[in-house]
Amino acid sequence: MSTDVAAPETPAQSVWKHRGDAPVSDETIRLIDTYWRAANYLSVGQIYLLDNPLLRTPLTVDDIKPRLLGHWGTTPGLNFLYAHMNRAIQERDLNTIYIIGPGHGGPGLVASAFLDGTYSEVYSDIDENEDGIRRLFKQFSFPGGIPSHVAPETPGSIHEGGELGYALSHAYGAAFDNPDLLVMAVVGDGEAETGPLATSWHSNKWLDPVQDGVVLPILHLNGYKIANPTVLDRIPQDELLALFRGYGYHPYLVEGGFDGEDHAVVHRRYAAVLDNVLNEIAEIKASAAAGTLEGRAVWPMIILRTPKGWTCPPIIDGQQVENTWRAHQVPLANARDTEAHTKLLESWLKSYKPEELFDEDGKPVADAVAIAPSGDRRMSANPIANGGLVRHALRLRDWRDFGVDVPSPGATSNEATRVLGEWLATVIADNPTNFRIFGPDETASNRLAPPVYETTDKQFAGEIRPIDEHIARVGRVMEVLSEHQCEGWLEGYLLTGRHGLFTSYEAFIHIVDSMFNQHAKWLKVTREIPWRRPISSLNYLLSSHVWRQDHNGFSHQDPGFIDHVVNKSADVVRVYLPFDANTLLSTYDHCLRSVNYVNVVVAGKQPQPNLLNVDQAVAHMTRGLGIFEWAGREVPGESPDVVLAAAGDIPTLEVLAASEILQKNIPDLKIRVVNVVDLMKLQDESEHPHGLSDRDYDAIFTRDKPVIFAYHGYPWLIHRLTYRRTGHSQLHVRGYKEEGTTTTPFDMVMRNDLDRYHLVIDVLDRVPGLGERYATLRQDMTDARLNARLFAYSKGEDIPEVANWSWHGSQSIGTGDTGGDNE
Amino acid sequence: MSTDVAAPETPAQSVWKHRGDAPVSDETIRLIDTYWRAANYLSVGQIYLLDNPLLRTPLTVDDIKPRLLGHWGTTPGLNFLYAHMNRAIQERDLNTIYIIGPGHGGPGLVASAFLDGTYSEVYSDIDENEDGIRRLFKQFSFPGGIPSHVAPETPGSIHEGGELGYALSHAYGAAFDNPDLLVMAVVGDGEAETGPLATSWHSNKWLDPVQDGVVLPILHLNGYKIANPTVLDRIPQDELLALFRGYGYHPYLVEGGFDGEDHAVVHRRYAAVLDNVLNEIAEIKASAAAGTLEGRAVWPMIILRTPKGWTCPPIIDGQQVENTWRAHQVPLANARDTEAHTKLLESWLKSYKPEELFDEDGKPVADAVAIAPSGDRRMSANPIANGGLVRHALRLRDWRDFGVDVPSPGATSNEATRVLGEWLATVIADNPTNFRIFGPDETASNRLAPPVYETTDKQFAGEIRPIDEHIARVGRVMEVLSEHQCEGWLEGYLLTGRHGLFTSYEAFIHIVDSMFNQHAKWLKVTREIPWRRPISSLNYLLSSHVWRQDHNGFSHQDPGFIDHVVNKSADVVRVYLPFDANTLLSTYDHCLRSVNYVNVVVAGKQPQPNLLNVDQAVAHMTRGLGIFEWAGREVPGESPDVVLAAAGDIPTLEVLAASEILQKNIPDLKIRVVNVVDLMKLQDESEHPHGLSDRDYDAIFTRDKPVIFAYHGYPWLIHRLTYRRTGHSQLHVRGYKEEGTTTTPFDMVMRNDLDRYHLVIDVLDRVPGLGERYATLRQDMTDARLNARLFAYSKGEDIPEVANWSWHGSQSIGTGDTGGDNE
Repeated sequence: MSTDVAAPETPAQSVWKHRGDAPVSDETIRLIDTYWRAANYLSVGQIYLLDNPLLRTPLTVDDIKPRLLGHWGTTPGLNFLYAHMNRAIQERDLNTIYIIGPGHGGPGLVASAFLDGTYSEVYSDIDENEDGIRRLFKQFSFPGGIPSHVAPETPGSIHEGGELGYALSHAYGAAFDNPDLLVMAVVGDGEAETGPLATSWHSNKWLDPVQDGVVLPILHLNGYKIANPTVLDRIPQDELLALFRGYGYHPYLVEGGFDGEDHAVVHRRYAAVLDNVLNEIAEIKASAAAGTLEGRAVWPMIILRTPKGWTCPPIIDGQQVENTWRAHQVPLANARDTEAHTKLLESWLKSYKPEELFDEDGKPVADAVAIAPSGDRRMSANPIANGGLVRHALRLRDWRDFGVDVPSPGATSNEATRVLGEWLATVIADNPTNFRIFGPDETASNRLAPPVYETTDKQFAGEIRPIDEHIARVGRVMEVLSEHQCEGWLEGYLLTGRHGLFTSYEAFIHIVDSMFNQHAKWLKVTREIPWRRPISSLNYLLSSHVWRQDHNGFSHQDPGFIDHVVNKSADVVRVYLPFDANTLLSTYDHCLRSVNYVNVVVAGKQPQPNLLNVDQAVAHMTRGLGIFEWAGREVPGESPDVVLAAAGDIPTLEVLAASEILQKNIPDLKIRVVNVVDLMKLQDESEHPHGLSDRDYDAIFTRDKPVIFAYHGYPWLIHRLTYRRTGHSQLHVRGYKEEGTTTTPFDMVMRNDLDRYHLVIDVLDRVPGLGERYATLRQDMTDARLNARLFAYSKGEDIPEVANWSWHGSQSIGTGDTGGDNE
Repeated sequence: MSTDVAAPETPAQSVWKHRGDAPVSDETIRLIDTYWRAANYLSVGQIYLLDNPLLRTPLTVDDIKPRLLGHWGTTPGLNFLYAHMNRAIQERDLNTIYIIGPGHGGPGLVASAFLDGTYSEVYSDIDENEDGIRRLFKQFSFPGGIPSHVAPETPGSIHEGGELGYALSHAYGAAFDNPDLLVMAVVGDGEAETGPLATSWHSNKWLDPVQDGVVLPILHLNGYKIANPTVLDRIPQDELLALFRGYGYHPYLVEGGFDGEDHAVVHRRYAAVLDNVLNEIAEIKASAAAGTLEGRAVWPMIILRTPKGWTCPPIIDGQQVENTWRAHQVPLANARDTEAHTKLLESWLKSYKPEELFDEDGKPVADAVAIAPSGDRRMSANPIANGGLVRHALRLRDWRDFGVDVPSPGATSNEATRVLGEWLATVIADNPTNFRIFGPDETASNRLAPPVYETTDKQFAGEIRPIDEHIARVGRVMEVLSEHQCEGWLEGYLLTGRHGLFTSYEAFIHIVDSMFNQHAKWLKVTREIPWRRPISSLNYLLSSHVWRQDHNGFSHQDPGFIDHVVNKSADVVRVYLPFDANTLLSTYDHCLRSVNYVNVVVAGKQPQPNLLNVDQAVAHMTRGLGIFEWAGREVPGESPDVVLAAAGDIPTLEVLAASEILQKNIPDLKIRVVNVVDLMKLQDESEHPHGLSDRDYDAIFTRDKPVIFAYHGYPWLIHRLTYRRTGHSQLHVRGYKEEGTTTTPFDMVMRNDLDRYHLVIDVLDRVPGLGERYATLRQDMTDARLNARLFAYSKGEDIPEVANWSWHGSQSIGTGDTGGDNE
């Protein structure tokens, strides 16, 4: 073990080595401890010091930051784990990344990246000398500086630890299809109380020991949250171990550092356990490779119990601080208040013996970094943790070859998602190791499945029985009834350079609102970090949408994810509402090629008329919105009397039907029909890169004519996107207004005044004078609404006229389908 | 055991009885089975039958519904559990409610409510005769009818099973402070894969065996979801049992019904286990009452493994259906397609022997309902499950006695939440059994704690150590690091007639977006159900808000929960932005008195100037918004030149400062300062009950003058709320635009152009001609912004001018506080 052990500079196939039982040498233990002291020193320094970074002169108040921010409590434990894994990486040539659940221990990971040399490589203003350390300290949690958490700015991180709960989901997502990767995933015992984390332990029921990498979960049991003990620290040890056996792991419990226990003893204890664990992993990997592994692999995990805030002053102002919640943030918050407190901080810093750790210039001495690997083996420099570096674009066949025939609008009909499934099956076939589909038990229900399952299976590591269909040890479809797991796995997969999509219920995608927030923020920040390379976009496919909850009703109706998404940075978010098979294909082709976005695609799975052929779909998707001249009554050179606009599949059909009724009944009315497929087109060009210029917007929507806009979601969103437009006061939006129950699709649109009849009434009411001229038509429309509901309430089906709605009489919408939407 | 066993008509203190080891008699087993057959028959009938409800004539195609919707798979298991619990309730006089996690098994609970007689009591059109059964069948999942899930419409339910994951959180919430209540909580094995459910097993670490009731979790392991096996069904049995031991339960595994096993045998097996479990519960209750219980109670739970779709045709069209995912929804979806399929449905229905279950008129025979308890002991009629029936209004002291002195605006300053805490401490003291505070480890951080902890403790059933502070076996504060658990517990607590509030981080309340959706939908529906009585409002207190994430930065900044909430029914949602101690007190007084709302309150916890004294706060809160005449320059009888409006604590202070700068520098400018504390006031009166009339709106904001609106959250929301207002085109909103990192509060407002200097610039730019007249002032403002940032970046603190901002020089904002915001 020395610094001159050569480590490969590029990621290579690592061998999962069994090290044997030889104890770690005293010298190695000493080097581990030296690294740990250096990392701890650099961590404390970041929290407290504005100047005098190496304590070359006595510490004064002016050396201390005016506002002390950050979190010490978890940091020494993280540094401990990093130091020990460094030793193992060197010895076994492991290809390792870290995931830090307690990500508020940011100073620790920054410290290690500095010791690794990575920090100075990516940030040219942070040199490996005293001035560099001064800058490193000052920037931490400082205006204009770096966040206090493990963040996009932290080399080696793919996981912002701000919001808790997703460490293991991200870790497993990173491990899928990375057979030689070891993901060290630290789970804080606070985080362990969250729901997403509690279920993510079960991710081991999907990992394949041959095709996928390894996750080593380390539960860091330091006993306290911000103001409370943690639950897992306050249950009997037999329950604790039973819990992790029950989760299907082989748990190793290591405890140390309490009551001033000698650090070397704790190092030796942990090093031995880590060796056992890595040996066990090597054995599983070997037997899996040899085909001799029986049943599901029982992977090891570690429970590390150390004092919170380990190595800080045990008692401050008469109160116990180390090993209590008081060490959570800044243990010595009053370091500037009295000379005694300043002295205490100085002696704490000096307890790490900085004079042994840094040379004259302030560069870490050889001993301090001897344990660290070099090149790409450094956890802070592993290219997998900068996913864009290892990302390969997907091989995609021309979607137009999978498009459906549309001789005229509505002449054919399809389940759009099933057509998409045919194309996705080829994406899977052509990209067998870097593309996956994630979903909460809904791939079949969303009708991607028949074609997709001709190419692949659902991956599952649990017991598989003969009755099961399309379930196998390996497969490209990942299903678990947890939106959190789907999202977390996919994020981890994307952040390490791969591709995928997440299909889910529109209403229940709100379950991951907060995860989306964090990912969108991550993307926004990484766009501004030059060394972070673009990763594949996060793609949603929301197919069981608000208008078609026939099996489920009101509780399954919520189109507000779009509203949630558009609050995030315009650089990052895109929303698409394709309305038929070809527009859905085109949309997804675009999504799978794009990088650094979140693409939200809402598209029905029910049989619906196809409106555009392949060429028309290309043209329409390129513009993102456009006039359906065939569906309105345009008079060349003249402005329309009214604009009927739609976004979404059901609204588009209702608008077409309304236009047909209007054309039939009002011979002289100039009607423009507009469809918006890229919702961000509505926004001002100064607010969103996709936004239309005012001139283009006015050319389509007019500056002064009534616009009746039938929208898929909550109507207010359209106003929020268009409030700056000239013609906004003439815009009238119909959408979902929280009116619905278990009912037919047509009754749903009527309850929310989005049906064709009501759209006609809207036109009559908004075009000056029209309502009076066509009072009979208005009454007919009112009657039609009443009759349709009466019919539905007596028969339980849509009225035939409605069910057989067609564009020029050619096709039915088909509402009689009972196919599964959800449990 | 017979129908004439008298059960109490009102909920009384039940005794937790030990029944001894005597086996259940054959006659009782027969009656359980008879009830079960009746419930199953009524369930199948709901899914399939439009007519001929008792099969008095041969079944024809016309008797079958045209669209078959609903879920059979879980239903027979739910009916089985209901039947068996009925027996136990009668024998032990148990006070029991049910929570059905697999709530899509709606037909089962409707069937039992009908057999209980409850259904006919609350729905006068559903009599206990053939016509009543016909109506019962037809309405199910039918236009104008009832939802397919266990829903607000279902008597006895407090839990809509549409979105999965919250069964146990709701169950424990119901059990808190209900010492004699048994909550039978069925968890589906699909639901068990969700994150919220996975962590909610740990709720037993909070339940007190003396003060609280009992939750009996029953994991219904029927093996399949909509299209996949379930994880917990596919792990080895020793892992399964270890998992629940690890969760701290004593698990009982019961398996039966496979391969045509005799039903009586399964009944006998389950009845024996249920007796053991209830005996064990009685023993725990007895020892806890006697004070002899050592350590945390290890409560029993049941794992019931039965075939999915149990008792449906095992094979349909050559495919195995029973005990597979194919039984999830409608197993015989083609019942109308061929005569053979219709016959198969008929023979399935007849397998329950309806001729033995209903008399000539169609009323259930005595044997069919002998096992059911009567009166309030019926699970479908327990008043606790209609919380408004048992709700008592809180005893609230006059908040004005707790108000702070405000001799003039800004003359004093307080942490508003700490002042609220003083009052909440009295709420706790005066309402010791029906009010709780829930939070994810943040009660102290949100500064309610010092006063609150002088009155109560945090409840915890895990190990308590001497070092712990304010933690006890019983207490009114419930802390767990899971927003899902906090929300679920509180919902369960409110739905059973109690009161509470949930304090959390503003950004991370998005974690429960989807739970909020479900609760808001529940409230909306219950408002329309006459027999559902109003429950206490769900109150949020979001104190660590977007502008003050000094410890955490960008990942902790998201004010979008308000946007999410306002999409829900206006009848249900309320949003308040109090800006100082007295307005916060007044707001919470209102919230704790209100019913059937969701109240979102966003209010800072940092020291801030008090602006209104008690009387002024009353007046301002009564109006919900108003003009701060003291803060502007109003000329009586004249319209202002510009309106400076604010909603939120930080924006209000910035607006005050901007007004001060403008008054100092532009002597003749008529400035109106407006504060909006009830956000829904901005909306049109036709859209929200709180909405201002256009006349009132125009009187405050003018019809044509520039309005510069400084808003707490995403600026677009203000446009969405006001787009119909006459003066909307003159409205310019500043808010949070996803710009932030770890920085000082003042730098935060500058990054988002919400600072006083930028507001002054906005005024100069929007009031015609003003910018040219005051070009120097404009330049000064630009310079001030630059200087402030330069200062912050070099020193790490706000510039003194800013830190010491005051209204007429009297008080400081105080930004130097490092007190804990979060990990």
